Amino acid sequence: MLNDGRTSERRHLRADAGSTPTPVTYYPVPLQMRLLENAKAIEGKPYADAFTRDLTVSPDWSKSLQDGPMPFDRTMTPSIADLARFASDPEGYPDSGYALLDGPTAYIQSRVVMPGVTTEMFRWWFTWHPIENERYSLWYPHAHVSNRVEYPGRLADKSLSFEERLFGNVNYVEEFIGATSLPIHIHFSHPRDLGMDEDALDRAGLTTSVSGTLRFGMAPEVTSALMLHLARDTEAGMELFSRYWIGAHPELHRFPGAEGAAALLAKMNLDADGALQLAYDMSVHDMTEYSHLARILPRLFSAFGKRD
Amino acid sequence: MLNDGRTSERRHLRADAGSTPTPVTYYPVPLQMRLLENAKAIEGKPYADAFTRDLTVSPDWSKSLQDGPMPFDRTMTPSIADLARFASDPEGYPDSGYALLDGPTAYIQSRVVMPGVTTEMFRWWFTWHPIENERYSLWYPHAHVSNRVEYPGRLADKSLSFEERLFGNVNYVEEFIGATSLPIHIHFSHPRDLGMDEDALDRAGLTTSVSGTLRFGMAPEVTSALMLHLARDTEAGMELFSRYWIGAHPELHRFPGAEGAAALLAKMNLDADGALQLAYDMSVHDMTEYSHLARILPRLFSAFGKRD
Repeated sequence: MLNDGRTSERRHLRADAGSTPTPVTYYPVPLQMRLLENAKAIEGKPYADAFTRDLTVSPDWSKSLQDGPMPFDRTMTPSIADLARFASDPEGYPDSGYALLDGPTAYIQSRVVMPGVTTEMFRWWFTWHPIENERYSLWYPHAHVSNRVEYPGRLADKSLSFEERLFGNVNYVEEFIGATSLPIHIHFSHPRDLGMDEDALDRAGLTTSVSGTLRFGMAPEVTSALMLHLARDTEAGMELFSRYWIGAHPELHRFPGAEGAAALLAKMNLDADGALQLAYDMSVHDMTEYSHLARILPRLFSAFGKRD
Repeated sequence: MLNDGRTSERRHLRADAGSTPTPVTYYPVPLQMRLLENAKAIEGKPYADAFTRDLTVSPDWSKSLQDGPMPFDRTMTPSIADLARFASDPEGYPDSGYALLDGPTAYIQSRVVMPGVTTEMFRWWFTWHPIENERYSLWYPHAHVSNRVEYPGRLADKSLSFEERLFGNVNYVEEFIGATSLPIHIHFSHPRDLGMDEDALDRAGLTTSVSGTLRFGMAPEVTSALMLHLARDTEAGMELFSRYWIGAHPELHRFPGAEGAAALLAKMNLDADGALQLAYDMSVHDMTEYSHLARILPRLFSAFGKRD
């Protein structure tokens, strides 16, 4: 029998705790075809041996996304107050889940500890991978199509800080979320420009951020999402907290261009059911790509990060 | 690196060979909601403890469906000649795969050996489960919605042979294929009425059949698919060969009502891409439900089959 008590308990387990990763059992057809193309494109690259089709995820994590939407009172909005509440107690939320919020807004949250990974490696990854599509494909070989960065010279400039290299340096990404390929412009930004309190993040040790607002390529003037990736080093490995709000949430209106999001979503057929399915598909995407990055990053950093 | 040679070899492995089942990592949102409804509905039924959300599949089987469509020259059409070729050499095909055939037609094939299961149990299952929706839900708790049989009295009549009870006794099923709930009328039929040679099936030992033509509930006069489930007892357990052709394949035109299939498919937005995705989703559905049935059937038969 289904045991609801047990299930909701499971939500609080660490994604990496005692759960041996098992193979991903489902890839929509376009992702299967993309894998074959990516496998061909990467031949001859010095990092080609890090490319694999055999992705695995924690069964506890994937199961925690299979109970329907998470309880509404465990979600957070992108309001400045909720962001402050999160920074003051990042562990006070279920590890992973998805939900439908006002807007409609697809909401996704996750937390993962990556043994053997450090925030230094993670920062390096975001300066290294956007330079070639094939590097980007390593991260999620079935779903990642292409990535181009607005100022590659700035991203590569080691005389600058990580923040100076990445923030305000748009990533033009194409990737599959669920079975749909989406062009996404990631406007990486300083957390304070996203409404977060720097001191509070410092107190939580969350000093590495690859967060930003997102715009879809078909409406590059419309801010359609806020994405948080906040990381800290722990004894068990790098701990990453992620949040996505994709949609027309009222609290996103503080970002320029967000007023067009509701009309855009309607045009993309993202009604309530569509946004909820997008939330689940994005949560599976997030689980898959961060589980896999955790596996390949130490080796890539040791082979290519030291020279950078 | 992707190793195409190894992959295509893997297609020939038995689905049950050396591959410890692992959890299903993806369920579309409507299936998650259906699971919760089915879990509630089954409470108090004498077989409720056989209901579980923890479905597993063979990683080899699921991986063999993740390479894109199978090679065209390893598929078969629903022609009488191809059915005869199959009966003369059922093992001469890859175990599992999906493809797009003429029509367009979604094509699916699978082969599975079920340790501890016999054809007697399998025949009993098809006389027992259609009597209550909750029994049907045991088979695939996330995807099965309802089942009703045209003549329940005939299905239950133990003075008749299995074939007399099931064949010509339409099952009105509703189930999710991928994320879409479909009403399906299964017209179970004698293999000879589907174009198969009885003697050839006898020679292959495939004397248990739960095969038939399918019609969608929104167009119950249109024959839209042919489904074969042919089984035999082996020392390792029951061996089941399955084939589905869903669409407007020219070789289906010998069945009454098939001439309307092309127009119906167009109305269902099943163009080539849609039919290929349906083929994959149906192959995953088939893998999931038959893997799970193999797990629960011996216990159900021992608890409820003996009194029937």
